[in-house]
Amino acid sequence: MDGGADGLGADGLGALRDALGERLVIDPELIAPYARDSSRAVADGAPRALVLAETTADVSAALAWAHAARVPVSVRGAGTGLTGGAMAYAGGIIVSLERMSRILEIDSANRIAVVQPGVITGELDDACREQGLFFPPDPASARLCTVGGNIATNAGGLRCVAHGVTSDSVAGLEVVLADGRVMRTGARTRKNAVGYDLTSLFVGSEGTLGVVTEATVRLKPVREGLPRTFRASFDRLEDAGRAVTAIVGGPAQVEVLELMDALSVEIIESFRPSGLVVPAGAMLVGQTVGADAETAAGIVTAICAAHGATDTEISESDALLEARRLSNPALNARGLKISCDVGVPVARLAEMFHGVAEISARHGLRVSTVAHAGDGNLHSTVESPDDAPGIRAADAVIDDITRLALSLDGTISGEHGIGSVKRHELPWQLDDTALAVQQAIKDALDPRGILTPGRAI
Amino acid sequence: MDGGADGLGADGLGALRDALGERLVIDPELIAPYARDSSRAVADGAPRALVLAETTADVSAALAWAHAARVPVSVRGAGTGLTGGAMAYAGGIIVSLERMSRILEIDSANRIAVVQPGVITGELDDACREQGLFFPPDPASARLCTVGGNIATNAGGLRCVAHGVTSDSVAGLEVVLADGRVMRTGARTRKNAVGYDLTSLFVGSEGTLGVVTEATVRLKPVREGLPRTFRASFDRLEDAGRAVTAIVGGPAQVEVLELMDALSVEIIESFRPSGLVVPAGAMLVGQTVGADAETAAGIVTAICAAHGATDTEISESDALLEARRLSNPALNARGLKISCDVGVPVARLAEMFHGVAEISARHGLRVSTVAHAGDGNLHSTVESPDDAPGIRAADAVIDDITRLALSLDGTISGEHGIGSVKRHELPWQLDDTALAVQQAIKDALDPRGILTPGRAI
Repeated sequence: MDGGADGLGADGLGALRDALGERLVIDPELIAPYARDSSRAVADGAPRALVLAETTADVSAALAWAHAARVPVSVRGAGTGLTGGAMAYAGGIIVSLERMSRILEIDSANRIAVVQPGVITGELDDACREQGLFFPPDPASARLCTVGGNIATNAGGLRCVAHGVTSDSVAGLEVVLADGRVMRTGARTRKNAVGYDLTSLFVGSEGTLGVVTEATVRLKPVREGLPRTFRASFDRLEDAGRAVTAIVGGPAQVEVLELMDALSVEIIESFRPSGLVVPAGAMLVGQTVGADAETAAGIVTAICAAHGATDTEISESDALLEARRLSNPALNARGLKISCDVGVPVARLAEMFHGVAEISARHGLRVSTVAHAGDGNLHSTVESPDDAPGIRAADAVIDDITRLALSLDGTISGEHGIGSVKRHELPWQLDDTALAVQQAIKDALDPRGILTPGRAI
Repeated sequence: MDGGADGLGADGLGALRDALGERLVIDPELIAPYARDSSRAVADGAPRALVLAETTADVSAALAWAHAARVPVSVRGAGTGLTGGAMAYAGGIIVSLERMSRILEIDSANRIAVVQPGVITGELDDACREQGLFFPPDPASARLCTVGGNIATNAGGLRCVAHGVTSDSVAGLEVVLADGRVMRTGARTRKNAVGYDLTSLFVGSEGTLGVVTEATVRLKPVREGLPRTFRASFDRLEDAGRAVTAIVGGPAQVEVLELMDALSVEIIESFRPSGLVVPAGAMLVGQTVGADAETAAGIVTAICAAHGATDTEISESDALLEARRLSNPALNARGLKISCDVGVPVARLAEMFHGVAEISARHGLRVSTVAHAGDGNLHSTVESPDDAPGIRAADAVIDDITRLALSLDGTISGEHGIGSVKRHELPWQLDDTALAVQQAIKDALDPRGILTPGRAI
């Protein structure tokens, strides 16, 4: 049973192998790709095993075992996280959900889909569009990331300005708790005032309270008509910020409203040339949808012109948005990682951009910023070598940008979550009582602290 | 200090009087109006004191005292609740928030308001409209109920079909915990992926986890153009249900979509005659907004006609919606109380209406139903005497309707919450693990169980 001759007994993994068979992987080379995410976080040692879960029962068996053995567990979708949340633990086990990737149901009449956590976000969206519906959450990594990962981090993305964050689209969950018990939350109805909102508690909990094994999500109807993509280039970044405030407060509803500063455009264009003209200050790109998309795009570009845009464009192609989505791979190709995800109220964007420029100048380091401008969420990246002193210097800049965002009534994380990378910032935003309440909930649901310990809260 | 000669010492209330002065009320006659809500729930005895809180510090002092003395606390806004959630406890204290009724800020640029919990929902909405914005939650009792009560129950209302429930409009809270500690949750940004979503955990927690003393809420812009109110009368209730499914799945966005069955219309019209013609089956009333409100209302009434409506109407007056809001007072005038708040996915509405008629016939009791049809939320009321046997008979009907809703993928409560009235239904919807997780959270945050004990979860 638990002999040790096969290398399982010594680790106490025998019982888990009995339950999981070949879905338990212990070969370090096979495990390695599952042991990290897309952040700069560094593993503290090698995990002991990887669980390629195929069913809720697999996840339950893995957690029950880890609970009994007091072994730390990391949970992984596609590994696109940017805050170290899915990094493996030394001696821990990894629960991968990539094999639980089925769309179980699309109920078009009630605008609900039921999915496993490993389904790729963009593929769910595609399947819904065949029925005239779409899945609102739309991270820039939608072609790579999973719905489970979106739920774990309460991911945002390009369409948040119109449709909110992931939690706004989650109606219910199936969750495996730390000790292996399985629970269902939520309902398929639009309203559900039944006890505590456990669904929202688990969304954004970054794997620290349980593992989501099924999600019931809300869909929206695709509006008729051809979407329009708009662009406006500005000589001054702050002008673009003021334009965003005016657009969001104006009469035209935008589906997407993104900002790239000059350096970001340059980085994207040099990564994959698509004819982007690098502006002196910043470029706004976005989309309007529905029967009046052309009119709305016209209103938006007129607002941009009134706020100093030097050049505007309306198009039926969404190539500009696809270019925007290349920001992260383009940064990675330069050895740079996004580690800033602050948010501010949209009316504070111009102040925020002004302050980021000041911080960049003060530190003597170039900063590129892309922003989900319509919802006030900024991703700034510091040009700094990918070595210890370089990372330290970059982190000092990000800390200053983060404190600036908080001084403008902002947040330390809009959509990437806290993970390990931003944990030191938590007390900057949350008071001692809120921190204590989070820990009390964690202790109540995971008393042995096996689930993604030391992160998120 | 705590002498007893003034009637305070014997109850151990002296320290609380020192903190609160005349804001601590012990006269039973003055307390009585604060001891109950608008449900059929019956008090189990007289409370010992009422706290007319004026500040967060008052609430904190009251809870710290109750925590130390292990005295149960009920929390009260306007007392419009329908599930017994705000009923006083024998020997307990009541924390009333009616004096904390200020709108602290309306930040129109960022579409945020900061309010105290006792502000009347409709008055907040009025104040926002002066700045071209509105507060989305819109319970039928909006002219009476408070924002704090809306938050406690995660209230819904007429505009949910377009704008969701209260939790969709709450960005952050100030909360006093059971032991008197004060905590802030959330942020003023659209996105906030920082730790657990404590805001959503407290919304809908019905006073069992803490007392909300301030709320930061999201506002939306009022759309230009004159709203249109539409009406469609049907000979058969199920046809109206099918029409609702088609409207919600159709191209026209509705702001409000309500259903009154024939008996409901009769009850409302006899309570306050306004020329409503009682239909044979049911009446749909609703509203469209925006520049294309007339077109949208035309689409809706055409869908109704195609689904068997015998008569339709489009108007610029919202008298029909005001009539709909009279449902609860009209029922109360007959000695009837709404105690059903089930929800179903909108595509199941026709089945639901069919089943309610069957249940009514089987029990030999007339049932009137009003519904926030667009979001699938039904309030059925049983015509039955207001005495013990009559209430028992009515409860048996409601139990059957509730089980029917669950069999149609529905919920036992859409917007009123659980309180004491629906607590026996909780295990019908929630599995044992979910019930245990709720209790674990309750125990973690209120270890002495002083806050609204024995209700909601």
